[in-house]
Amino acid sequence: MQSPMEIALEEARAAAARGEVPVGAVVTDAAGVVLARAGNEVEARRDPTAHAEMLALGAAAAARGGKYLADCVLTVSLEPCPLCAAAASLYRVKRVVFGAYDPKGGGVEHGARIFAAPSCHHAPEVVGGVRESEAAELLRAFFLARR
Amino acid sequence: MQSPMEIALEEARAAAARGEVPVGAVVTDAAGVVLARAGNEVEARRDPTAHAEMLALGAAAAARGGKYLADCVLTVSLEPCPLCAAAASLYRVKRVVFGAYDPKGGGVEHGARIFAAPSCHHAPEVVGGVRESEAAELLRAFFLARR
Repeated sequence: MQSPMEIALEEARAAAARGEVPVGAVVTDAAGVVLARAGNEVEARRDPTAHAEMLALGAAAAARGGKYLADCVLTVSLEPCPLCAAAASLYRVKRVVFGAYDPKGGGVEHGARIFAAPSCHHAPEVVGGVRESEAAELLRAFFLARR
Repeated sequence: MQSPMEIALEEARAAAARGEVPVGAVVTDAAGVVLARAGNEVEARRDPTAHAEMLALGAAAAARGGKYLADCVLTVSLEPCPLCAAAASLYRVKRVVFGAYDPKGGGVEHGARIFAAPSCHHAPEVVGGVRESEAAELLRAFFLARR
């Protein structure tokens, strides 16, 4: 069975092949079952909020027919930006696992540090740096090829 | 002609009438034309991210057929939360005008202060406190009635 991070990396690679910034995400439930997986679709949808995490979280909640994903893990190849971190909090995700750290755009360990604000109503557990170099290399290769 | 804040307050009152937390938003272009307006639909959609701002921003960008709303103003009855503030930044909204301040859940002047992070790539101009007491009173009345 693929690990969630392997699925997220697979979605990131598929995004790159479509000309999207290579970020992939997957939502799994307490039993490890995949509820939804997605790659970045900002260009395809012409929507700057169509991040992999937003699509996976929305689809997972819709699949459940409920508002919250309290027993779920969001696994994503890159540190979520403030938008996606805020969404993970609103969906009450139990844990966020991410690959590469993103000092320039991240909103978990960097920048707005969404979960650290005293007014953040739900702060998921965070595990960063999982297969970090693979996720980072995908992004590096993508942006290098576009220069 | 109604002012954008009057429209946002009207959407907030309509949201309250549907049993939603009363927040309303409207996106106007440089000429003041309404591109999209929405009230909170968290309960109706069973989606904790279906905030008035997210719905109005998404609909405005879709109406334009473009990714960005660089000449637009987002007017909302309540200080946007971190999710909505981050979305306004990603859509490159020119200005965010809001009514009541939200020390508990706001992400502009409070909490994560999205636009103030050095890594925030686009920080809209911010005008807070417009018809503040009306917006706050709507929320107060809504939560009082639910106690």
